[in-house]
Amino acid sequence: MAKPAATAKKRAKKAEAVVAERGETPVVQWRISQEEYDERVARVRQELERRRLDALVLFHPIRMAYTSGFYHVSTERPMAIVIPFDPKLGLGALIPQLEQDHIAKSPSVRAVKVYPEYPSGGTKHPLRHLADLLKEMGLARAGTRIGYDSNGYLDINGYDGPELSEVVAEGVETVRARDIIDTMRAVKSRTELDFIKRSCVWGNLAHRIMHNNLELGRTEIEISMAAGAEASRIMVTALGPAYQPLTANWGQPALVIFHAGSNTALPHGLMQGGGLRRGDVLVTGAGADFGGYNSELERTMILGEPTVEFERYFQIMLDLQQTAFDALRPGRTLAEAETDMSKAFKDFGVAENQRHHTGHSIGLEGHEAPFIDKGAEAVIEENMVFTIEPGLYVPGVAGFRHSDTVVVRADGVERLTFYPRDLASLIVRL
Amino acid sequence: MAKPAATAKKRAKKAEAVVAERGETPVVQWRISQEEYDERVARVRQELERRRLDALVLFHPIRMAYTSGFYHVSTERPMAIVIPFDPKLGLGALIPQLEQDHIAKSPSVRAVKVYPEYPSGGTKHPLRHLADLLKEMGLARAGTRIGYDSNGYLDINGYDGPELSEVVAEGVETVRARDIIDTMRAVKSRTELDFIKRSCVWGNLAHRIMHNNLELGRTEIEISMAAGAEASRIMVTALGPAYQPLTANWGQPALVIFHAGSNTALPHGLMQGGGLRRGDVLVTGAGADFGGYNSELERTMILGEPTVEFERYFQIMLDLQQTAFDALRPGRTLAEAETDMSKAFKDFGVAENQRHHTGHSIGLEGHEAPFIDKGAEAVIEENMVFTIEPGLYVPGVAGFRHSDTVVVRADGVERLTFYPRDLASLIVRL
Repeated sequence: MAKPAATAKKRAKKAEAVVAERGETPVVQWRISQEEYDERVARVRQELERRRLDALVLFHPIRMAYTSGFYHVSTERPMAIVIPFDPKLGLGALIPQLEQDHIAKSPSVRAVKVYPEYPSGGTKHPLRHLADLLKEMGLARAGTRIGYDSNGYLDINGYDGPELSEVVAEGVETVRARDIIDTMRAVKSRTELDFIKRSCVWGNLAHRIMHNNLELGRTEIEISMAAGAEASRIMVTALGPAYQPLTANWGQPALVIFHAGSNTALPHGLMQGGGLRRGDVLVTGAGADFGGYNSELERTMILGEPTVEFERYFQIMLDLQQTAFDALRPGRTLAEAETDMSKAFKDFGVAENQRHHTGHSIGLEGHEAPFIDKGAEAVIEENMVFTIEPGLYVPGVAGFRHSDTVVVRADGVERLTFYPRDLASLIVRL
Repeated sequence: MAKPAATAKKRAKKAEAVVAERGETPVVQWRISQEEYDERVARVRQELERRRLDALVLFHPIRMAYTSGFYHVSTERPMAIVIPFDPKLGLGALIPQLEQDHIAKSPSVRAVKVYPEYPSGGTKHPLRHLADLLKEMGLARAGTRIGYDSNGYLDINGYDGPELSEVVAEGVETVRARDIIDTMRAVKSRTELDFIKRSCVWGNLAHRIMHNNLELGRTEIEISMAAGAEASRIMVTALGPAYQPLTANWGQPALVIFHAGSNTALPHGLMQGGGLRRGDVLVTGAGADFGGYNSELERTMILGEPTVEFERYFQIMLDLQQTAFDALRPGRTLAEAETDMSKAFKDFGVAENQRHHTGHSIGLEGHEAPFIDKGAEAVIEENMVFTIEPGLYVPGVAGFRHSDTVVVRADGVERLTFYPRDLASLIVRL
């Protein structure tokens, strides 16, 4: 059952050698290093000690990837990573037979429990196999305390099953601890920041291709999908075979979407198949997957000459975004920054056009904790990455929202997305 | 707080009138009718009565859509639908301010509780607003029994919060009941089957465009994304402005992907950016969103002349798929069908090449319950829809898997996907 780490390391070395022979950049350069994964696990263990937990069980695919480097597509077949406090033990993993070859690529995973299939699990539910794994890892003694991100596997693709607290051994206590990993993820490492910056470049390309291909009568869907495909083609060509999208849906490296017309007055509109018309307002979104990391670029655009009313709201939106850039400084709380924003919406006379808070963290997921929100007591720290996107929604007129991805530096924020923000650059004359 | 259904109905009528003026098919034709939603809710109430439940709380976006017609993108902002047993009450909905204009389009939702934002919720966590909604709907008296699909909102995008059982009023009992909706979803209505058949047509187009554009040296990603974009463009053009993708990721109407080369020996491979080479085996996948419903079409293909070994495994895979088509008949259990398949894998001498069960249900989600699996005691019924995809994984050679979407009829299955299955049609001579 135990898989020696040596095998996985040998495989990785071999893959590198193959790539090197072809004269390409080795795979490892566009992946988080094993050292960084080890360091993350060490920090988890410090937190387990502080909370007097003997292990942390993670069911969410992104938290599994963050701690083990095991990227996968979640389905109804449950998977989990177990991080025991005892550093002599490696990580444990619950894996369906289907994924057993993939997990072998994660060297820090040593105790692999493979079950045949869901729902049968062979003779018992897969979560009972997880209970067996915990037992084999010495985590079934009375008094053991196990933290979890969710009390059981995800509600996804028709999965159903018992809670973790129902399958652990008698006398084992289970404790909610989703915040351990999510708090760590909020502050980015040098490599993570590098990947997010690279993501911004490819998202910028996808946006520019979309921008250059706007045409009256063509639909949102056809323009954006063609632009996403073209940007992805260029991205894959430029980066070569070492590149692989890791967290993007359906393996699409670069993506761009937009909503047009009256649809933009809703913050999260569904795309419509109607063709573009003169006078349409566009609210766009672009991003790309680099080493599993994402970025967010959104722009408000207009097809044809803007009205005076449009120009007025556009300028307020720009000013609100600048207020938000200025509000984020290390040492303040996120709630303080958001309180500045409420005041700004009021001062600009657009309080009734606000529909959501200023932004969210971003990294392995498109939205992450913490949020720039009045309920967020977290202190802003250097190397946190946020989207800054205060939006105005004017019924009967349009939506107005730019979103930029920024990193917090000692003296304020640095903008990582670099698409032009000014109105002149975003008027499309057709 | 209460939104009269009349407003929403008026809006729908107005939208229809606008579309009709343009000479297009009205929107409602490509949506599930309000009558069908009402009928679904009536059946939920029958089940609530049987289980002596006073209400069902649904957090999963697809279960929310299935019962209310409210399609949306899930984020960290929790949402829920409450179906009270009392038919005099309409449905209840917990909604962030961001989505309040969308929910107005669901006429059966009458009690809407809007909270400002996550995590603040204004002054209290959004799930406390849900508790208020339950109270206003008369679901806070001691002895009330509330079913749920999950005991709290999804673990998604950094969301964190209390369980439902922690926020309900003193003396209210909460009961796991995810299966109520999922069991209903397993048997498809006439309209659902119609939408799935239409999905098969557009998935077929995406697959054919991909097939016709295979070229040595080009990457999996560029070929499949370009084909998906082209198929979506044609789909949107053909269906006109009434069409809207509802459950597809990022609003992409038609999608096609494939894995090539040694990657195919893993059932769920991540796509690689390397270019196609002569001799590569492809395992493909295509589908499309029609009225929110999906289908699955997968084919094993080869670039250039197949080896004798390839031909042998390909034929076994075809024979196994035929065995599976024959195994599904109303009145048998899914476990019985899967037991036939285990026997067939053994008889063909390929038991060690099996990595997963035969298939899954499909509809609003790409994978749904129940599964064709030894642990599935559900009885096969007419109008259930399954993928049939027994796969062979031969290390060092390739993966062999076709997937067809079928509907169960009185006398066996009817295949809804119609792409050629035979080897001659799937050899690509380059």
